[in-house]
Amino acid sequence: MTTTLITGAVAILSLVLAAWLAGRLIKQKIADEGARLISGYIKEGAMAFLWKEYKILAIVVMVLVLVMLLVPAWSWKMAVTFLVGAILSALAGFVSVWLSTAASAQVAERCQEDANAGLRLSFLASSITGLAIVGLGLLGVAVFYLVFDEAQIIFGFGLGVSLVALFIRVGGGIYTKAADIGADWVGKIEEKIPEDDLRNPAVIADVVGDNVGDMAGMGADLFESYVDGLIAALALTLAFLPLFGVNSVALPLLLAAIGLATSIAGGLVVMMFKGDTAGLIRKGNWLAAILMIIISFFAVRYTVGDINIFWSLVIGLAASWLITGLTKYFLSEKRWLVKSIANASGTGAATNIIYGLSWGMISSIISAAVVVAAVSWSYKLGDLFGLAIASWGMLSNLAIILASNTFGPIVDNAAGISRMAGLGHQAQAGSEKLDEKGNIGATLNKNVAIVSAVLTAIVLLVSFSQMVNLETVNLLNIKVLLSLLVGAILPFLFCALTVKSVGQAAAKMVEESRRQFREISGLLSGETQPDYKRCIKISTNAALRQMILPGILAVAAPLVIGWWWGAESLVGLLVGSLVVGFLLATWMVNAGGLWDNAKKFLANHDLNQPNGEAYKAAIIGDTVGDPLKDVAGPALNIFIKLMIIVAIIMAPLMMK
Amino acid sequence: MTTTLITGAVAILSLVLAAWLAGRLIKQKIADEGARLISGYIKEGAMAFLWKEYKILAIVVMVLVLVMLLVPAWSWKMAVTFLVGAILSALAGFVSVWLSTAASAQVAERCQEDANAGLRLSFLASSITGLAIVGLGLLGVAVFYLVFDEAQIIFGFGLGVSLVALFIRVGGGIYTKAADIGADWVGKIEEKIPEDDLRNPAVIADVVGDNVGDMAGMGADLFESYVDGLIAALALTLAFLPLFGVNSVALPLLLAAIGLATSIAGGLVVMMFKGDTAGLIRKGNWLAAILMIIISFFAVRYTVGDINIFWSLVIGLAASWLITGLTKYFLSEKRWLVKSIANASGTGAATNIIYGLSWGMISSIISAAVVVAAVSWSYKLGDLFGLAIASWGMLSNLAIILASNTFGPIVDNAAGISRMAGLGHQAQAGSEKLDEKGNIGATLNKNVAIVSAVLTAIVLLVSFSQMVNLETVNLLNIKVLLSLLVGAILPFLFCALTVKSVGQAAAKMVEESRRQFREISGLLSGETQPDYKRCIKISTNAALRQMILPGILAVAAPLVIGWWWGAESLVGLLVGSLVVGFLLATWMVNAGGLWDNAKKFLANHDLNQPNGEAYKAAIIGDTVGDPLKDVAGPALNIFIKLMIIVAIIMAPLMMK
Repeated sequence: MTTTLITGAVAILSLVLAAWLAGRLIKQKIADEGARLISGYIKEGAMAFLWKEYKILAIVVMVLVLVMLLVPAWSWKMAVTFLVGAILSALAGFVSVWLSTAASAQVAERCQEDANAGLRLSFLASSITGLAIVGLGLLGVAVFYLVFDEAQIIFGFGLGVSLVALFIRVGGGIYTKAADIGADWVGKIEEKIPEDDLRNPAVIADVVGDNVGDMAGMGADLFESYVDGLIAALALTLAFLPLFGVNSVALPLLLAAIGLATSIAGGLVVMMFKGDTAGLIRKGNWLAAILMIIISFFAVRYTVGDINIFWSLVIGLAASWLITGLTKYFLSEKRWLVKSIANASGTGAATNIIYGLSWGMISSIISAAVVVAAVSWSYKLGDLFGLAIASWGMLSNLAIILASNTFGPIVDNAAGISRMAGLGHQAQAGSEKLDEKGNIGATLNKNVAIVSAVLTAIVLLVSFSQMVNLETVNLLNIKVLLSLLVGAILPFLFCALTVKSVGQAAAKMVEESRRQFREISGLLSGETQPDYKRCIKISTNAALRQMILPGILAVAAPLVIGWWWGAESLVGLLVGSLVVGFLLATWMVNAGGLWDNAKKFLANHDLNQPNGEAYKAAIIGDTVGDPLKDVAGPALNIFIKLMIIVAIIMAPLMMK
Repeated sequence: MTTTLITGAVAILSLVLAAWLAGRLIKQKIADEGARLISGYIKEGAMAFLWKEYKILAIVVMVLVLVMLLVPAWSWKMAVTFLVGAILSALAGFVSVWLSTAASAQVAERCQEDANAGLRLSFLASSITGLAIVGLGLLGVAVFYLVFDEAQIIFGFGLGVSLVALFIRVGGGIYTKAADIGADWVGKIEEKIPEDDLRNPAVIADVVGDNVGDMAGMGADLFESYVDGLIAALALTLAFLPLFGVNSVALPLLLAAIGLATSIAGGLVVMMFKGDTAGLIRKGNWLAAILMIIISFFAVRYTVGDINIFWSLVIGLAASWLITGLTKYFLSEKRWLVKSIANASGTGAATNIIYGLSWGMISSIISAAVVVAAVSWSYKLGDLFGLAIASWGMLSNLAIILASNTFGPIVDNAAGISRMAGLGHQAQAGSEKLDEKGNIGATLNKNVAIVSAVLTAIVLLVSFSQMVNLETVNLLNIKVLLSLLVGAILPFLFCALTVKSVGQAAAKMVEESRRQFREISGLLSGETQPDYKRCIKISTNAALRQMILPGILAVAAPLVIGWWWGAESLVGLLVGSLVVGFLLATWMVNAGGLWDNAKKFLANHDLNQPNGEAYKAAIIGDTVGDPLKDVAGPALNIFIKLMIIVAIIMAPLMMK
């Protein structure tokens, strides 16, 4: 009870702080007329798309609410939590877009002074996102936990959050990548005009896409990671009530409060001191981490009182830092890997792609090694309770991770606006410099989301088997083995569907852009404006049409196998999806990040081929990576958990 | 005993027939001087590489023989079977190369008359391969079974066969693909000279590679599939001795004899009648299939006497036909899929690759559906015995499958020789037409090998768990779950290693070819010969150096996990590798096949872009697919089984 109140108080503090900072952000004016105008277009376009998307989601959610109310094994309570979860998830996406559209023009202008000022403002904007997302998630879980005090009901909340997040990730992803590929291919390669050039018909769709895809998608995705991580930890620790008493459930909530409070402390350091912002962010992160460890030590001591549980938490935190550090190392343009892929572009697009594919695979192996070490170690130290705490440890300080790494789409947009509005060399160079950092930050966020998803999923799986009273799931049972195989193909199906949707929409975008360049006279000379709206329409239609099927897949697959072959096979299915989804997601996200940074590296120093053949080859690699790293890959982490949550929701129907 | 004698007799008949046909083949002379010369170069190059490769393999095999002799849990018998298996596997690779180098120049000359005559000779050559491979495999297993009468010992044979096949697949694959990519990129794209042009420095390495990679690799691979399939069926049916008596083991051997005999009958139809060869091959296949079903019905009836077992066999055969039919349908240039990927090339290399990637993924899903249906149905009908028979059913008529589909590298070489020796338009058009068919045949063989590998692997897994007395492998055990994850990353590691090796060697080949075009004056005009040997050296060194590590991986992984975490976790590891390896392999093989045929389609009718931009884009896709479809993908099916066989060999060390 006290814990829930403390937690709620910290969550509310975080939301108040977010609101206050947001107020400060929007008070600032955009000086440049052109930048204000373009930024207005982007905001309008993004909001229009979100509105359309949310209308469709509302229908889906309402249908499911009805089903929940009608099936007697479920209750109105679950329908309520589901509905609120869905709304909050949509809100997380909305807040992210709103902030990014509000901040990006200002960031572009700040970069006219210097990149440092731009980064400072970007950090402010992404801190607001972090505070809002974590605050909302924590408050939601705490309130429902206090009110209903029942794990099964809170999973309704998780279902709403996950389902809507998946739709937002996939829909936004298809939107942005179709536009991005179309704009890059026809603009940069065929017509040889610069990036983000207003003569490009797909350019507005592209920048709008950065918001509804990368920003709303990432916001909803990380909100989902946070909420599901917390719910999973709560559900599993609940099983330890007999051992630790009420303290067992208090611990994850306390850790959430500590993680949020120390994140706020770290963030304040960045905002209050002047100087090198990147350095300050590093210091803020260190401060938050050290505070988190010290305070958590006492929290563990005065709740469950087992030092091994404290070490499990440290393992979770360490896993998160390790993934962060490795991603930064491998994706840095100063290191050998990005250079070697850039080098491979010198012998053609094919070698570039082959290198990226194989290094992406190696990155999956490294991530899997981290997961295996974290899970086996924390389990050895503290059994399932240790595992639950380690898994939650990875996410408990999400607010500062988000604040430090979520500015990618904001600075990407800032770079676009500064080019389109012609804010001058200084602004452009500054925002492009930030853009590189932003790309690494985005990949980093995706990796944290994926690795934490695996831990969360394992914890959820354990909870599910406890709920349906399963003690063994026998792999030598042919049905279980085949279910595992069926589970393994689902991520393939999911990726094939989403990647193909992007490919089709992108091909349409290329054709439409070519048509406009061919048919609209004076377009290339800049005398006539292109027809931006037709390109926006292609992205919008593709996104809204194609986002439904992958979502249905996630809900239907566990339903069908669970009903047909029972709970044991269902676990097989979920494990198959979990393992394959994890590896595919990591591979796609990192291969895509590598291609992207190799392209950026060559744009800055194309040493091999003065005629830019290597750069062109790198653009092809980057384009192949686009749907992998920004649609299929990051959506898989939601997909995996959503399936398990569906299984958990179905558990009352499967108990014998 | 009688069965073993019948089986041995059929196997010997098959070998005699192969020898007789081979005698007929080499008696025929090559009329054209140039073709004879080039064909001589190719043979020499291929044999030189095989010789070098086999010397290294001899060392590896000898070390393992020593280990087997020294560890008391194993016996000299196992060392003998292992050694013979390794030698036969190498022999299968050698025979395939020998035949292909002997036949390809003749096929090229026959195509001067018409493509039909060329196909006829190609069928003759690949029939010899089929008869030799199946005959050797069946004779080897039958003899060892008769002599030692112990499953564990025969697995030594399987280990030798699999290990050497893996090395040949990977080594040959790296050799050929490095040369292929280098020759295509610098020749076709950069210097814009035709395929298989003698001015291209990498051209000889490329055609030699077709033999040591595609031909030796495919030969050793399918020999391995056949042997392991038979051993797996024998080991599992042995467990049914109490139920069916000695008939239980007699059945798989009988089915092998029937499959081989009916294949011979089908092949004779093709050779004895004149007319449309492609039509005759279809008829021969039908005849073999119908005979196989009828005779098997009686074989089942008079051995185990259970009609359900007969239906299990039919399910296995049907699965094989289904995979064959689906591959033909989806890869046909006349169907929508290849056209749609060719179309996607019109909007750039990136959309081409994105389409290929996603359709490759969909193909994995289809294959997995076939596997799930075949396994669950045959298991339902005849329990584990039914599963063993279904799995063996897929491979028992391998001889005719091989005869019908293995001429890909032969006609590929024929096309190359006819271009290089200038055998005229008729010969070139004829051999190119066959080349398209050959490409589908190769993909088809790979798909049959992969799908049958999954069934074989499941049967082997069951045998392993019986040997170590495991009744349950609990997925809810965290160790098992993590082992499954570790198993799942092994195919990723395997692919990353092999694909990266190809990428590196190809990049070197591109640089060397560029250097020659730059530095050797008179090369492009045809006055000076390029330095072929330096290119051959690049391929040879890369192949020999990089083939070792993937092989060590397959042997070491089950050893380490088995020793460390025990038999239960080892099953988890093997299942993880099996599932992920299967999906990756199918995906890679089919995506690669699609890109290849989309390229061929555009070469024949590039309608969209007269300047050939779409064709260039399709070449990039094809090049990306090369290491996937010809190195990593098909080697995975061996990798999966090799790991399980290593586990089985280790079983005596793990029993408690």
